[in-house]
Amino acid sequence: MSNLEQMRAELQELNLQLLDLMNQRAALSKAIGEVKRKQGTNKFDPEFERHMLNQIAEHNHGPFEDSTVQHLFKQIFKACLDLQQDSSKKLLLVSRKKKAEDTVVQIGDVKVGVAGHPLMIAGPCSVESLEQVREVAKALKEQGIGVLRGGAFKPRTSPYDFQGLGVEGLEILRQVGDEFGLKVISEIVNPSDIEMATKYVDVIQIGARNMQNFELLKAAGRVNTPVLLKRGLSATIEEFIYAAEYILSNGNTNVMLCERGIRTYEKATRNTLDISAVPILKQETHLPVFVDVTHSTGRRDLLLPTARAAVAIGADGVMVEVHPDPETALSDAKQQLSIPQFNEFMSELRATKLSQI
Amino acid sequence: MSNLEQMRAELQELNLQLLDLMNQRAALSKAIGEVKRKQGTNKFDPEFERHMLNQIAEHNHGPFEDSTVQHLFKQIFKACLDLQQDSSKKLLLVSRKKKAEDTVVQIGDVKVGVAGHPLMIAGPCSVESLEQVREVAKALKEQGIGVLRGGAFKPRTSPYDFQGLGVEGLEILRQVGDEFGLKVISEIVNPSDIEMATKYVDVIQIGARNMQNFELLKAAGRVNTPVLLKRGLSATIEEFIYAAEYILSNGNTNVMLCERGIRTYEKATRNTLDISAVPILKQETHLPVFVDVTHSTGRRDLLLPTARAAVAIGADGVMVEVHPDPETALSDAKQQLSIPQFNEFMSELRATKLSQI
Amino acid sequence: MSNLEQMRAELQELNLQLLDLMNQRAALSKAIGEVKRKQGTNKFDPEFERHMLNQIAEHNHGPFEDSTVQHLFKQIFKACLDLQQDSSKKLLLVSRKKKAEDTVVQIGDVKVGVAGHPLMIAGPCSVESLEQVREVAKALKEQGIGVLRGGAFKPRTSPYDFQGLGVEGLEILRQVGDEFGLKVISEIVNPSDIEMATKYVDVIQIGARNMQNFELLKAAGRVNTPVLLKRGLSATIEEFIYAAEYILSNGNTNVMLCERGIRTYEKATRNTLDISAVPILKQETHLPVFVDVTHSTGRRDLLLPTARAAVAIGADGVMVEVHPDPETALSDAKQQLSIPQFNEFMSELRATKLSQI
Amino acid sequence: MSNLEQMRAELQELNLQLLDLMNQRAALSKAIGEVKRKQGTNKFDPEFERHMLNQIAEHNHGPFEDSTVQHLFKQIFKACLDLQQDSSKKLLLVSRKKKAEDTVVQIGDVKVGVAGHPLMIAGPCSVESLEQVREVAKALKEQGIGVLRGGAFKPRTSPYDFQGLGVEGLEILRQVGDEFGLKVISEIVNPSDIEMATKYVDVIQIGARNMQNFELLKAAGRVNTPVLLKRGLSATIEEFIYAAEYILSNGNTNVMLCERGIRTYEKATRNTLDISAVPILKQETHLPVFVDVTHSTGRRDLLLPTARAAVAIGADGVMVEVHPDPETALSDAKQQLSIPQFNEFMSELRATKLSQI
Repeated sequence: MSNLEQMRAELQELNLQLLDLMNQRAALSKAIGEVKRKQGTNKFDPEFERHMLNQIAEHNHGPFEDSTVQHLFKQIFKACLDLQQDSSKKLLLVSRKKKAEDTVVQIGDVKVGVAGHPLMIAGPCSVESLEQVREVAKALKEQGIGVLRGGAFKPRTSPYDFQGLGVEGLEILRQVGDEFGLKVISEIVNPSDIEMATKYVDVIQIGARNMQNFELLKAAGRVNTPVLLKRGLSATIEEFIYAAEYILSNGNTNVMLCERGIRTYEKATRNTLDISAVPILKQETHLPVFVDVTHSTGRRDLLLPTARAAVAIGADGVMVEVHPDPETALSDAKQQLSIPQFNEFMSELRATKLSQI
Repeated sequence: MSNLEQMRAELQELNLQLLDLMNQRAALSKAIGEVKRKQGTNKFDPEFERHMLNQIAEHNHGPFEDSTVQHLFKQIFKACLDLQQDSSKKLLLVSRKKKAEDTVVQIGDVKVGVAGHPLMIAGPCSVESLEQVREVAKALKEQGIGVLRGGAFKPRTSPYDFQGLGVEGLEILRQVGDEFGLKVISEIVNPSDIEMATKYVDVIQIGARNMQNFELLKAAGRVNTPVLLKRGLSATIEEFIYAAEYILSNGNTNVMLCERGIRTYEKATRNTLDISAVPILKQETHLPVFVDVTHSTGRRDLLLPTARAAVAIGADGVMVEVHPDPETALSDAKQQLSIPQFNEFMSELRATKLSQI
Repeated sequence: MSNLEQMRAELQELNLQLLDLMNQRAALSKAIGEVKRKQGTNKFDPEFERHMLNQIAEHNHGPFEDSTVQHLFKQIFKACLDLQQDSSKKLLLVSRKKKAEDTVVQIGDVKVGVAGHPLMIAGPCSVESLEQVREVAKALKEQGIGVLRGGAFKPRTSPYDFQGLGVEGLEILRQVGDEFGLKVISEIVNPSDIEMATKYVDVIQIGARNMQNFELLKAAGRVNTPVLLKRGLSATIEEFIYAAEYILSNGNTNVMLCERGIRTYEKATRNTLDISAVPILKQETHLPVFVDVTHSTGRRDLLLPTARAAVAIGADGVMVEVHPDPETALSDAKQQLSIPQFNEFMSELRATKLSQI
Repeated sequence: MSNLEQMRAELQELNLQLLDLMNQRAALSKAIGEVKRKQGTNKFDPEFERHMLNQIAEHNHGPFEDSTVQHLFKQIFKACLDLQQDSSKKLLLVSRKKKAEDTVVQIGDVKVGVAGHPLMIAGPCSVESLEQVREVAKALKEQGIGVLRGGAFKPRTSPYDFQGLGVEGLEILRQVGDEFGLKVISEIVNPSDIEMATKYVDVIQIGARNMQNFELLKAAGRVNTPVLLKRGLSATIEEFIYAAEYILSNGNTNVMLCERGIRTYEKATRNTLDISAVPILKQETHLPVFVDVTHSTGRRDLLLPTARAAVAIGADGVMVEVHPDPETALSDAKQQLSIPQFNEFMSELRATKLSQI
């Protein structure tokens, strides 16, 4: 055995001793967690942790520097704490590790999240009038689409922009939904409106600007109505997942996620569609994942290609905005499809064949 | 006169004819705006605009392409609309064009926004206990600082992280504030809590995640308590200004802005301090502008240099987090100053001399 | 006719007068451009432009402000200059407006850019040895793939990282290419190496870090070997298009574009795949567009879903990294596929069916 | 002693045993590194590492999960590797850990990097004519400024934009520099021009687009002429530091760094000045650090405030663009100062007093 081989054998022996000690420490730490749970005290005790770190530095004689061993011990402390805590990430309610099978959300008789059966949700950016919503509903019905979207409370950058019809908008949606046999979805922005909204809508939408409006998330978690949660303008995927967890941890498990583009330096599109977020969210969570092709691109000419990409990558649904006369729309005029455009969009999307590579 | 000179003279003549027609059109458009105002109809009429653009294309015989003349006319339409609209940007309530002189916000007897007199606001990230806040208050008092910050409602990424003491935290702040003669500032996150909060705090903070929580902005606009509005994690300066306008347009003019770093690709700092935002906000608005050096950098070692930059660039104030024992803090342990560190920070900041260049 | 209707009729009359004057000005400006061309003088004359802007301000009596009319005239000047200049954007050599039909690049007998026939390019990140490249080449051959990639000159963040085998790497590629009947592609980083490289490779790759290395682009434009140009780490689509124009304008029209992810705040992926860039580049240019799924995601588990999205959205090709033993690779160990993984990737990709929506 | 106290005592005992084993492992690993160094083999052996990780998982019986212990061991492996490697970050030639004292770069008799003595560098974006450069040089001389900048090779987004006068521009700079007794700095873009450039310029500038043009960096490293290296458009600070290391590791230690704004979503400024980069670069490296206020903001109205911030935060120098007639400049017309504006800029900057906080 060469010198190097012998040293390596010793190294492996040290590894196994380290492993054994780590697991002893883990077991002891778990037991301490049990004691604390019974006492009702906080599992994380920063004072004791600091005490241990100080002690470790005092006893450290290298060759590792103090900062290195402290870093390594912090990793060990953290792993032990994770063992103690039910609240660790691997146990998030939204996590695939917690629940392996796909969550199927029921919007009345419409099922969302069944593999191989993506759902289209369409409708105008803003509810402007009964007539407008009816025209769109008729087009959806003819396309065999079961869920109608429409904004009643519109979060707008400027206080002087059209702020939506409010409750009147919800009433219009409900009336048209009932008339055409469609389920309806609309954004709610005030925690105190959630309860009221459940009387009108089949799905509560929480918009990008409110993804970390935690009071709104908690309120949406306390009802049973399905929630479609949009990713924040510059939210990380991790933050997005935690935002969904706010809803589930308050009791409502009917949650759908929606990628809608993120803010980047690129200005060719309104936002940058982060298409990779779809498979990541499908891996990390058991929730259905939508792609809003309208807001992610902000360009009518990109709706069809991005919808194709969304379906191909495994999205459970696509959202798109349709308006009887987009040019005169009170919001987002440039990115909504007219009804003939929408019909063409649907037929081209449905006719798509994947090229062989 | 050469051929080229003669052609240029003709060109200038055409310029002046164009100028005359443009101003005729502007005057007529302004008059139309007046008529519409009396009728209460929307000034922007996309249908008529589209009609005009079609007509222009029909009558266009080049050499400009249709798309070019339509682009030029859209610029003219936009300029005319700007003339019509009271709500145009130059008339925002927050705008310097609307009010040239600096707004001075009074927090009790503390004046914020007086040129040459920047204000320090300091305190712990979270209110954890009466004793903790007292220790910090004592340190502030000794440094001659008049405003104490402390979080009672903590917006946290995870629902399982410490969420703050809530109203109890506000009570502690008020009690300590009264005891030490300090004004207190704390973040409020629920529109329905704003009214209640005015009983406890001297300044309502609206946090970065809530910068476009428009219901919260409106609620803060309906009280008289000063508001410190933080820039959103990825808000443009324009969106930030409009968010402040939500507060002013609801009646509360006591608004202070706070740059706190924006989200970029760079990971050496928690966020990227957008120092240029300070002079831009000072130019565009008449409101006091703060820099939160703690959240923009997330690094203790950068607090002093960035505070120096903030003062040098003309900020009306600096915010910094101080904790009696940062290592054990329930939130943001890594970025808070201990009290001795804070004392050193203050004395070094106050001793700073600008190098001659 | 109501007052408003009459005013609107007048407005339309003014529009047509403005249109007429604009086109008169355009025609005159075009004529001036001709004179200048003959004189060989620069078409853009900022001094005369400034003179005109001053004159316009002097003659402006409102209601438009001086800055507004100057802005409008600048738009008109710009439109006139565009008419004059052959070099205006609509005449870029890469532009669809210049050449409507798709460019098909021939790599030997391999055609790239034929609609409905996307191409796979695969191979190791770095060429490490003859044996390594042979193993990969064999796998490609068995999958019916005709183009092999491999890095010989590696741009690395640190000067102490493996910098590639250089010319020796090119020789290995050529030898293996010839042995297996594969075309080969490799990145070149120094303008002075372009000429030499054409002896070894069938396609010159210009990497993301060099997208605006204009000397390299010019050198690649002066040979006939096809070029695959990668989008810069934070390049806008517009900058990317102009970078390609550098190559075409130097004579080489065999250019392929490659989206490879952009730098954003999101850290779940190495970069953010900007999938919308594909249809935009296909619209704006006539060049083939690839998607590099390896560098855009940096994650093995995302290669298959993003490759599906790339094909669905209409990419002309996909690039992916394959290594006989990824864990021991000298670069990018975490993101390369092993050969069995690559075989599975190919068969799953080829078996993909689009779900009906 | 309570149950909890006893368990904690055991925990501490385990900590110390772990510490001891870790340091044994570190010492052994260091010894292995020595053996490898003598053998000339790579210190990082991914195959053996994988073997150890497999072995650890086989021997793991919990309560830690395999993935947890593997994560902990990877941290330990990494710490050991850091101990082994001379090439680790703390030993970079640019690092403060390698050389504690500030590097002072001599540009002729001008010293750069002397604490408390920041340097101004000014001049036109592009060299356009002898007369133009002379006018600027005269203004610099009157302000007591010793270093003149001017672009001769201009990297431009479009191949049809003004590309600079090339060598003729360098000749003009040299001539004017000699005439007025000024040192001159100009950007070089082609590795093969570096040698030639040393005959004309006192400082070679490497521009943002070329920060990772490693061939150019290496070429600049092989001469002795001082180099001013600009941060890439979206380079991390870490990448910036490594880019400088390319120059130093090739022999040239006369390197100055220049923060010039990074690309973000914010469009109020051309780029976002990352002011925090200055103290970070000063901490991490021993090199002088400049701030280019012109390119970071792209706005004339922000030059003065950002220059103040740069000086206050400890920059060793400021770069600003000055042009005799900015409106007619062939590049970057909107952001250059005229000579009277420059004189005002200098006198206001020099008159700045820090407000007391």
